[in-house]
Amino acid sequence: MPALRAAPAWRATEWFNTEAPLTLDALRGRVVMICAFQMLCPGCVSHGIPQAQRVAELFRPDDVQVIGLHTVFEHHEAMAPQALRAFLHEYKVAFPVGVDAPEGDGIPQTMRAYGMQGTPTTILIDREGRLRRQAFGRMSDLQLGAEIMALVAETQNQAMTTAADEPATEGVCTPEGCR
Amino acid sequence: MPALRAAPAWRATEWFNTEAPLTLDALRGRVVMICAFQMLCPGCVSHGIPQAQRVAELFRPDDVQVIGLHTVFEHHEAMAPQALRAFLHEYKVAFPVGVDAPEGDGIPQTMRAYGMQGTPTTILIDREGRLRRQAFGRMSDLQLGAEIMALVAETQNQAMTTAADEPATEGVCTPEGCR
Amino acid sequence: MPALRAAPAWRATEWFNTEAPLTLDALRGRVVMICAFQMLCPGCVSHGIPQAQRVAELFRPDDVQVIGLHTVFEHHEAMAPQALRAFLHEYKVAFPVGVDAPEGDGIPQTMRAYGMQGTPTTILIDREGRLRRQAFGRMSDLQLGAEIMALVAETQNQAMTTAADEPATEGVCTPEGCR
Amino acid sequence: MPALRAAPAWRATEWFNTEAPLTLDALRGRVVMICAFQMLCPGCVSHGIPQAQRVAELFRPDDVQVIGLHTVFEHHEAMAPQALRAFLHEYKVAFPVGVDAPEGDGIPQTMRAYGMQGTPTTILIDREGRLRRQAFGRMSDLQLGAEIMALVAETQNQAMTTAADEPATEGVCTPEGCR
Repeated sequence: MPALRAAPAWRATEWFNTEAPLTLDALRGRVVMICAFQMLCPGCVSHGIPQAQRVAELFRPDDVQVIGLHTVFEHHEAMAPQALRAFLHEYKVAFPVGVDAPEGDGIPQTMRAYGMQGTPTTILIDREGRLRRQAFGRMSDLQLGAEIMALVAETQNQAMTTAADEPATEGVCTPEGCR
Repeated sequence: MPALRAAPAWRATEWFNTEAPLTLDALRGRVVMICAFQMLCPGCVSHGIPQAQRVAELFRPDDVQVIGLHTVFEHHEAMAPQALRAFLHEYKVAFPVGVDAPEGDGIPQTMRAYGMQGTPTTILIDREGRLRRQAFGRMSDLQLGAEIMALVAETQNQAMTTAADEPATEGVCTPEGCR
Repeated sequence: MPALRAAPAWRATEWFNTEAPLTLDALRGRVVMICAFQMLCPGCVSHGIPQAQRVAELFRPDDVQVIGLHTVFEHHEAMAPQALRAFLHEYKVAFPVGVDAPEGDGIPQTMRAYGMQGTPTTILIDREGRLRRQAFGRMSDLQLGAEIMALVAETQNQAMTTAADEPATEGVCTPEGCR
Repeated sequence: MPALRAAPAWRATEWFNTEAPLTLDALRGRVVMICAFQMLCPGCVSHGIPQAQRVAELFRPDDVQVIGLHTVFEHHEAMAPQALRAFLHEYKVAFPVGVDAPEGDGIPQTMRAYGMQGTPTTILIDREGRLRRQAFGRMSDLQLGAEIMALVAETQNQAMTTAADEPATEGVCTPEGCR
């Protein structure tokens, strides 16, 4: 098996629902799930965010840290941090959410570093800080629960293979538009 | 039966998805359904707007005109017309949408004139321009279909009574907050 | 407009949820909705029967009579009246249900008289006993509510045209098999 | 931690979807999920069986064996093996299903041996043949996926603790009746 790649650090200009900015290094030892979303992306609102909320409720925080990342790549003025604050309040999102560092009106920096195709994107990082899964679109709860637990169950340095169907992509947004 | 009340005129400062502003007078002869919503209201996004889209697709435009009304009573800066434009684009809302005339940071003018409790609110106006139904929260498709058709079927000056269960109110927003 | 056809009489060998057998003649003056189903038809269990239950709850019995018709055309031994009785109990079906008169192991008599393609089939009969709608598969609640109300609203001898999309047919059963 | 209990052997009088009867001993080395159901139990049809189908599709057969168990404790005549055969065909159930050995008209033998409360019941057995989870009612896909993967990931003799919310119980059936 090839060596696993360390997950890139994220770059956020602002954080909500946390007293201090979160860093990947400080989360070493936990599984990290990143829910990359845009507040005006239909597939994020109907699927990605509610699923991340379910993950945050089911797993113990010591095992799994859920993080939202607002990766705005379109309609920048409509999705400014102030609008995001209202969105998080109305949708009762309680997990920490960072604002991906913008790069003008284009793809923001963390989105680019990970090579994400669009939103929603689900990213799983293992206890050692290695990137283990990156999925654009909708994953089923059954598969996501299984993949997270596979990482939770790892106590050593080895990787497991998991069933990996392609997620569905209705309602997603890419830089070319939303489907 | 008491005399039916004429529906108040709406006051909109801006329109989307229509070449010219719509007026109640000009729609005389058609049944009008108003979907009053806020773009950051969870119950509007998950229920009210998709239902209005289904109504707009099912009935003939000559019989039923669906109109969205953006009745912003909170988070005014996050829901400005420019953000609404992005929202309508991403959610593929094709029916005409008016921006309810703001009244400072409080209840906008049409919302106040109708005495709406919050969003989503569904309003039905008959072919004669009379207010026939105002429901805060979620109506079932079965009931809404029946109530609209009851008005479509009226050709004269008389009113029909329709079964009128109370709609459900999960996910709605009122000036006191969203549920 | 061509003359409307009188709905064929149904032929049932047994009834549940009613003290006496129901006849079309005795229901003259009401709109009748027939939900033709089989207890082992997936599309009937997930869609047709729950929808008929919603109709039975929404409309007034004086306006709309909902009737189930068990049109068994396959697996006859698994769907005998005694099994149907258990099914109706467990699924809490409260409206009257008749057992379509069998014709050996083939298409039962009422199903044949109406020329039904399979199950679920929704049939609407107007206050004058005329067949106004016959739909194989899934109708949306919005459309069904509208079509029923169109018939409820008729007080005289004339017919109205209603929007009539083709219903969806996932999970339905035909004599050639279930989809 | 107390010693884990060996899962009781199941007793089936008949099998579908398998050439030979399945035994717990022969499945040693795999995780086994038992979906105990009744064909006329609403919560089994709407939730338990579709969920078991998703599990059977997601995991590799070498890792997880899904088994249906028809634990009939009511309406025995309506749910005889011949009716079950028709049910499995119409609902396209492809995993092996055993008929729990009846005990007159009461609780069948495997159901009694496990002390199941009703249907649906989900049972997880680890690679060593030990009973690890027994849940009456509805488990979420997220939790079930996680719990199964926790067992799949075990390669040695130790047990892991998993998050264990109580499952929901709408639509379930117990010997006292269906909810």
